[in-house]
Amino acid sequence: MVYFDNASTTKSFSFINKTIVDILDNMFFNPSSLHTPGFDVKQKLEKARSNILQLLNAFNFNLVFTGSATEANNLAFFQFKKGKCLIGMGEHPSILEVAKNLKNQGKDIEFVPLDKSGKVDIVKFKELLSDDISFVSVQMVSNETGAINDIKNLVKITKQYAPRAIFHSDLVQAVGKLEVNINNLGVDLATISAHKIHGPKGIGALLFNKKLSIIPQILGGGQEMGLRSGTENVAYAVAFAKALDYCIKNQNKAYENAVMYRKTITDAFDNSKLKYSINGCGSPFIMSVSFFNVRGETVMHALEQYDILVSTGSACSSKKTGNRTLEAMGLNKEYINGNIRISFGHEEFPLDVVKKAALDIIECVNTLQRI
Amino acid sequence: MVYFDNASTTKSFSFINKTIVDILDNMFFNPSSLHTPGFDVKQKLEKARSNILQLLNAFNFNLVFTGSATEANNLAFFQFKKGKCLIGMGEHPSILEVAKNLKNQGKDIEFVPLDKSGKVDIVKFKELLSDDISFVSVQMVSNETGAINDIKNLVKITKQYAPRAIFHSDLVQAVGKLEVNINNLGVDLATISAHKIHGPKGIGALLFNKKLSIIPQILGGGQEMGLRSGTENVAYAVAFAKALDYCIKNQNKAYENAVMYRKTITDAFDNSKLKYSINGCGSPFIMSVSFFNVRGETVMHALEQYDILVSTGSACSSKKTGNRTLEAMGLNKEYINGNIRISFGHEEFPLDVVKKAALDIIECVNTLQRI
Repeated sequence: MVYFDNASTTKSFSFINKTIVDILDNMFFNPSSLHTPGFDVKQKLEKARSNILQLLNAFNFNLVFTGSATEANNLAFFQFKKGKCLIGMGEHPSILEVAKNLKNQGKDIEFVPLDKSGKVDIVKFKELLSDDISFVSVQMVSNETGAINDIKNLVKITKQYAPRAIFHSDLVQAVGKLEVNINNLGVDLATISAHKIHGPKGIGALLFNKKLSIIPQILGGGQEMGLRSGTENVAYAVAFAKALDYCIKNQNKAYENAVMYRKTITDAFDNSKLKYSINGCGSPFIMSVSFFNVRGETVMHALEQYDILVSTGSACSSKKTGNRTLEAMGLNKEYINGNIRISFGHEEFPLDVVKKAALDIIECVNTLQRI
Repeated sequence: MVYFDNASTTKSFSFINKTIVDILDNMFFNPSSLHTPGFDVKQKLEKARSNILQLLNAFNFNLVFTGSATEANNLAFFQFKKGKCLIGMGEHPSILEVAKNLKNQGKDIEFVPLDKSGKVDIVKFKELLSDDISFVSVQMVSNETGAINDIKNLVKITKQYAPRAIFHSDLVQAVGKLEVNINNLGVDLATISAHKIHGPKGIGALLFNKKLSIIPQILGGGQEMGLRSGTENVAYAVAFAKALDYCIKNQNKAYENAVMYRKTITDAFDNSKLKYSINGCGSPFIMSVSFFNVRGETVMHALEQYDILVSTGSACSSKKTGNRTLEAMGLNKEYINGNIRISFGHEEFPLDVVKKAALDIIECVNTLQRI
């Protein structure tokens, strides 16, 4: 099977899963327990935490493990209490839905439009900044199009025109794929996820500058420095750190592969009579492709017959019709309806497999267009 | 090692861990993905959900998987918006801390005192009920003392004197150990946890009567029927259902074992000159024991030398001094300071191992008292 749906989720690597089962089997103690085995488990958890911070060059930061990146994004947004808030129109639903909910409650939320490449429109962004903005959230890489926002620059502009603002960035589709240096980016808060980097589903993290006083959303026994109560999922935390370590160490190779896979596919498309367009550009790991006179969902299902798995937009938006991000980019309905997303991870394919997949996609779309 | 700290957490059984790794290895797809493998994973998740509901006889119920029982308790409490709220004084911190937080925000929260046996004082409970009570939360089994509240009766009284109230019960220390029949109990909301029944740490669930409109706390991609967004931890959900199935099927045996372990220990204590008292009574799985002229924490650490693991109060309260539940039961400081918790799970021990452990505890306490 050719799995080209890595932006939805990635295969948790076998060596990662072995780590999980090893901890579940042998280090099952509660990290909050005061006895020595409990303390040892706690140490294991803290090691995972510091490893992740170090891997992302987040030296004045700490992080709180959450049950998902969605929870981490919600926790980030939970820090917004007063003033105005600015978020990108292409953010993940875990930011966008919170924003809509708060707006319904009368909070002052502004949405920054996207430009044609799928990035936050920097001119509009600057225009919307003001002294009373207290929270900004812009993702580094769009989960829909792969468009890359220049977070470092956006932070710089924010600090200039909205000096009191907390800057949050959802780095879920960036870490382990592109270079991410938290201190260099200058963000205050950042979200990461394990299951997009070949770790398990069910753990995310919010990184935060130590200068901030984080307000917890989940209260209870005071775990995670009081910032996220609930017995810690130590097995997944350790797996998360291990997955990140692997993906960062193999980042360059994975990046080059993604570029090559992308090129192989577009070359094949270009050498055929297939009419298509790529929506947005940025990360080579995500290709948002539109075909014409055919529905993306139909293509996706038909490709299963060729043992190729892709998606239509993001899995997190699968329940919604249309595509919010592509609409925000100003694409017309035909492009949006004919859209599929092809996305790569760290899994490697021989180039002839990718080429065969591209030819299969062409054949599949051609067949569907004829019907 | 003799692990007598099962109220903190239990060992995730090896066959459960194998299930986890099997799903992580082979069914890694995103359950929100629209392709067939995604759909198959979704089916697996739904099967786990319906299994749990069935095992607990929760026939007009649905459930939302959360990242912990703490999150489930928080989500339950999130349903309280208007009117007055009534909670037991011995509730888990994930209820108690939310209550305190809301009280600080000016919400009308009443705490029901405990009687000497550690249960919610039923006379006071009745007195505090009124027409404007909209939310009640009382746990079935105290994680500190094992005291069992008669939830069925409390629900009956609540429906009589506060007919509009939603009744929530934290069943974390009850399921898989005592008979739990949700429909029979009559609760509206109930919290359960995997890691207290030999499943993994990092998953809990909130069961809810289908008549209720649950307000989600975590927003995003609309997973879990829109009630708890975030990519689902399918591996743990399936493990959760499997652990519950095992524990319910072996409940009677585990119960009898716990009764026997408890008797073996108290018999040994009684046959020695050890001065001790058992605080509260109810579930045989949890023994809250106080010794005199010795600190519980010192006993706990000293017992590690005998390869016996117990705790002082709950792991979730390990960061706090004193013991809220024992204080609420009216115990004096001496009893509270000398307190340890011995707790059993489904793990079996030969009786001579338990007897040896009891003798070790006696020797240990005697030695410490002499110092």
